[in-house]
Amino acid sequence: MNTNINANRATLLISCPERPGIISTVSNFLLEHKANIVHFDQHTTDPLAGIFFMRIEFDMNHFDESFSKLKEDLPEMAREYSMEWKLSGKGERKRMAIYVSKMDHCLLELLWRWKSKELEVDIPLVISNHPDMREVVEGFGIPYHHVPITPDTKAEAEQKSVELLDGKVDFIVLARYMQILSPSFISKFPNRIINIHHSFLPAFVGANPYARAFNRGVKLIGATAHYVTNDLDEGPIIEQDVQRVNHRHTAQDLKIAGRHVERQVLAQAVAWHVENKVIVHGNKTIVF
Amino acid sequence: MNTNINANRATLLISCPERPGIISTVSNFLLEHKANIVHFDQHTTDPLAGIFFMRIEFDMNHFDESFSKLKEDLPEMAREYSMEWKLSGKGERKRMAIYVSKMDHCLLELLWRWKSKELEVDIPLVISNHPDMREVVEGFGIPYHHVPITPDTKAEAEQKSVELLDGKVDFIVLARYMQILSPSFISKFPNRIINIHHSFLPAFVGANPYARAFNRGVKLIGATAHYVTNDLDEGPIIEQDVQRVNHRHTAQDLKIAGRHVERQVLAQAVAWHVENKVIVHGNKTIVF
Amino acid sequence: MNTNINANRATLLISCPERPGIISTVSNFLLEHKANIVHFDQHTTDPLAGIFFMRIEFDMNHFDESFSKLKEDLPEMAREYSMEWKLSGKGERKRMAIYVSKMDHCLLELLWRWKSKELEVDIPLVISNHPDMREVVEGFGIPYHHVPITPDTKAEAEQKSVELLDGKVDFIVLARYMQILSPSFISKFPNRIINIHHSFLPAFVGANPYARAFNRGVKLIGATAHYVTNDLDEGPIIEQDVQRVNHRHTAQDLKIAGRHVERQVLAQAVAWHVENKVIVHGNKTIVF
Amino acid sequence: MNTNINANRATLLISCPERPGIISTVSNFLLEHKANIVHFDQHTTDPLAGIFFMRIEFDMNHFDESFSKLKEDLPEMAREYSMEWKLSGKGERKRMAIYVSKMDHCLLELLWRWKSKELEVDIPLVISNHPDMREVVEGFGIPYHHVPITPDTKAEAEQKSVELLDGKVDFIVLARYMQILSPSFISKFPNRIINIHHSFLPAFVGANPYARAFNRGVKLIGATAHYVTNDLDEGPIIEQDVQRVNHRHTAQDLKIAGRHVERQVLAQAVAWHVENKVIVHGNKTIVF
Repeated sequence: MNTNINANRATLLISCPERPGIISTVSNFLLEHKANIVHFDQHTTDPLAGIFFMRIEFDMNHFDESFSKLKEDLPEMAREYSMEWKLSGKGERKRMAIYVSKMDHCLLELLWRWKSKELEVDIPLVISNHPDMREVVEGFGIPYHHVPITPDTKAEAEQKSVELLDGKVDFIVLARYMQILSPSFISKFPNRIINIHHSFLPAFVGANPYARAFNRGVKLIGATAHYVTNDLDEGPIIEQDVQRVNHRHTAQDLKIAGRHVERQVLAQAVAWHVENKVIVHGNKTIVF
Repeated sequence: MNTNINANRATLLISCPERPGIISTVSNFLLEHKANIVHFDQHTTDPLAGIFFMRIEFDMNHFDESFSKLKEDLPEMAREYSMEWKLSGKGERKRMAIYVSKMDHCLLELLWRWKSKELEVDIPLVISNHPDMREVVEGFGIPYHHVPITPDTKAEAEQKSVELLDGKVDFIVLARYMQILSPSFISKFPNRIINIHHSFLPAFVGANPYARAFNRGVKLIGATAHYVTNDLDEGPIIEQDVQRVNHRHTAQDLKIAGRHVERQVLAQAVAWHVENKVIVHGNKTIVF
Repeated sequence: MNTNINANRATLLISCPERPGIISTVSNFLLEHKANIVHFDQHTTDPLAGIFFMRIEFDMNHFDESFSKLKEDLPEMAREYSMEWKLSGKGERKRMAIYVSKMDHCLLELLWRWKSKELEVDIPLVISNHPDMREVVEGFGIPYHHVPITPDTKAEAEQKSVELLDGKVDFIVLARYMQILSPSFISKFPNRIINIHHSFLPAFVGANPYARAFNRGVKLIGATAHYVTNDLDEGPIIEQDVQRVNHRHTAQDLKIAGRHVERQVLAQAVAWHVENKVIVHGNKTIVF
Repeated sequence: MNTNINANRATLLISCPERPGIISTVSNFLLEHKANIVHFDQHTTDPLAGIFFMRIEFDMNHFDESFSKLKEDLPEMAREYSMEWKLSGKGERKRMAIYVSKMDHCLLELLWRWKSKELEVDIPLVISNHPDMREVVEGFGIPYHHVPITPDTKAEAEQKSVELLDGKVDFIVLARYMQILSPSFISKFPNRIINIHHSFLPAFVGANPYARAFNRGVKLIGATAHYVTNDLDEGPIIEQDVQRVNHRHTAQDLKIAGRHVERQVLAQAVAWHVENKVIVHGNKTIVF
């Protein structure tokens, strides 16, 4: 679901240990700060001794003044309740870098949703280990950086990539980027790198999954969008979907069907991330 | 989604005109009454001048005492905010009557979910205008009342039905009941009669919809569960779903496929109603 | 499902009154003409007295020679069985015109699938009653014709359109084209104009369907791709699909969700048309 | 899709090495034997050197006479083309044994579809390693055999089971049967034992899959119906489907949602098997 961007709208995400009175405390805090709650979502892993999660969208009439006061006062409440929090105010558009290799379907889906203003982000740059997508990306008015990678130059290339991103982006989308990121790189963007990969029932781990899914005669193929952790393809899942296939689909047809699921699932996961709807808890997500 | 029934759990549904501080007021009220909030859902049609909807599940340690105090104090707060509210306490199992004609698929789905304790209701009786389902219903240990209806005896039959229900049920499910209820009957159970009907894209109004859907070559058939109002099949929608079909499906095959969608959709709608997850607003529902 | 285009592949579609021996006759005919059957699909409305439909994909080794012989001999068999038939040989790429107004989502989906060679057609031109899409269309290297339409110039504009198409296209896709075509225009492309429109359960006929679907609280929104006939939005359905929505979707959100369903459904319908998989029978389709 | 059982209908399944003229040969053969083809499905793994699969439904006017002649003559044609074939004539209802342990959802789904005549089989017996389902099964008028299994008595129990089945059944459905069958048992029913198991993206192999899926925060849960081979849960897939879940689903809720997918998927797979729509090729299926 798409959030109607309101000029005076802000979002507050909170996680903290359960204890009585959290909702009361936070809603009182917001009321005192003249915040009108628009959406309020909450989840708890265990009402007695679990973790409490909350997402609040609110409007403020005299935004600039009220919001800066709220920002100033929030840490004290947060300390008292051992809250982790994230506050996103009006006009704070997230800045998204896209990494891509040679396949364009996920890249194009993101660019089109961005251009149609369905995806409200800035895209300061696209980085690729191949030159192929330069024309299409620059056609959208977005800088394209070709950073080639060979086994020998991997560390160096990643360093170059870090420099390109430096201070410019809030999160990264791997739109079918076929390189493995180093733990050091990943640690710079905790729960802020989104990846997409194909998914099958049962799973086909290793090379040539589409050929193996074909040989097994699967009736569904799917895609999973997740945050990147050091466990390859094993980070917290944001979104998944499937598409029905049959014995007439060749391995190549499965790939094409897979592309359509991948781009829908990735674009949906990115939208939820941008709208501050995803909280990561351990290796799972709460998507409000 | 199934709510884990907790011995000390209660549910509060609220609708009221928007104004600042509702969440704060209600959460303070609950905190004072020693209610631990487990699930909190909220929706507003317009944060400035709309209607505010809220659903709260909460636990209480010393339930009986705390709950009766809360029940006593609630009306005052409600008055102040012009709230409509519904409070459901521990152990208040809803009592569901099922109306059925000759088709058993929806009836059986409900009875099976009830028997497996997935559907936590009491079923004091099943009423039918035909004798056909007596054996199966009584096999589940549920009283079965055959109330035949002819054009001439319609009013009388409905009166009999009202007497059978009197004081015994909280809501009614029309599990493929092929009779139209009178406005007078419906007014006794506002937003508490759930019906299921087939749905097509485009709609085929009138007789023989499956034959006409077949002639039109639809690729999807669906079902809609809704609350019954005086506008036939036009009440607030609770749940909908579809199933894919193709040119090889005969009109009879469409009916069979339709049965499977109908029973899933109806059972889901009933579950949400039982879990107090549905609020009706005008001719639409909020399903938390 | 995507057909692997084979250099020596052809497709034969047949409809005719049922009678014994059709499959035998046609398969013997193909064998004699050295055609190796790759896919064979058949359907009958009634095995005794119905209409028989058949789609055959076949390969030929010495294509040019064998195919022209087959083409020469086919009419005789067809006459004997009162067959309607359509034969598409190797390299006969269909030529597709796209009509568009101001919304780009369906247009872009088609252009991408075309550029990625997933959609194997030629696109000789795009026609629009607005100038807005010129840049994007010409960016794909496709001629763009702006043919403005006012109530007064409608007939004239359509005449201009006919001239632009003359001899250049095999079928037309209305990719959210917001003008009604005249019966005279439609009759020039029988079952060769594909349209997409939103679909709801129940149907909301008339103006502002998204606003009305929102007011009704639908839980699914859908799209239907169909061939255009003189009955507005009532032609033979090729493909349909839906997407789940909920009370939090604004009317604007419903529109956005609708866009994603529309482009997937339209692109799928176009693919099947291009692969000669759709036979129209009365007001319904057989999609092999 | 449900086949309309016709009193004079028969089904022929064929697999054989590809070579020119198979369709021609078979359709001529059927024509000569006065069989009117109703449905004709075909698939090839490779039109030049692959395996050819065919399913034909046909009607015969003077069934008994014509069919026995066809049955007599079929082996000769089959020999010439190295065909494997399976012929099912009028009134040959398949006999299905159901194995069940303690969970009743799949069992009940099958029994309902059988009772409503949607599933056209005979059910000579239900076998269980537990006594729990006796009442419900006998309530449907079906003999129930309790064959307890301990690690020590496994071989003996299986022997008992073989004796119970002896000559009485055509195929077996494991409706959540929680025992592993021996290779010797499986070899008695090659591609004639259907199993259902839960499926997740990604796969969770080993104990407590629902708890682990919950911990991983999956957004879809699914089920796979497959023929049983000696590779546990790895046999040819017949059908799969999924259902959407979210962070509010407890591990118990996932199980319940899983039950609904399992029974739909298993019942569909069984229907296709009964209608002779499934051909196994290596470790995959063609489902016509």
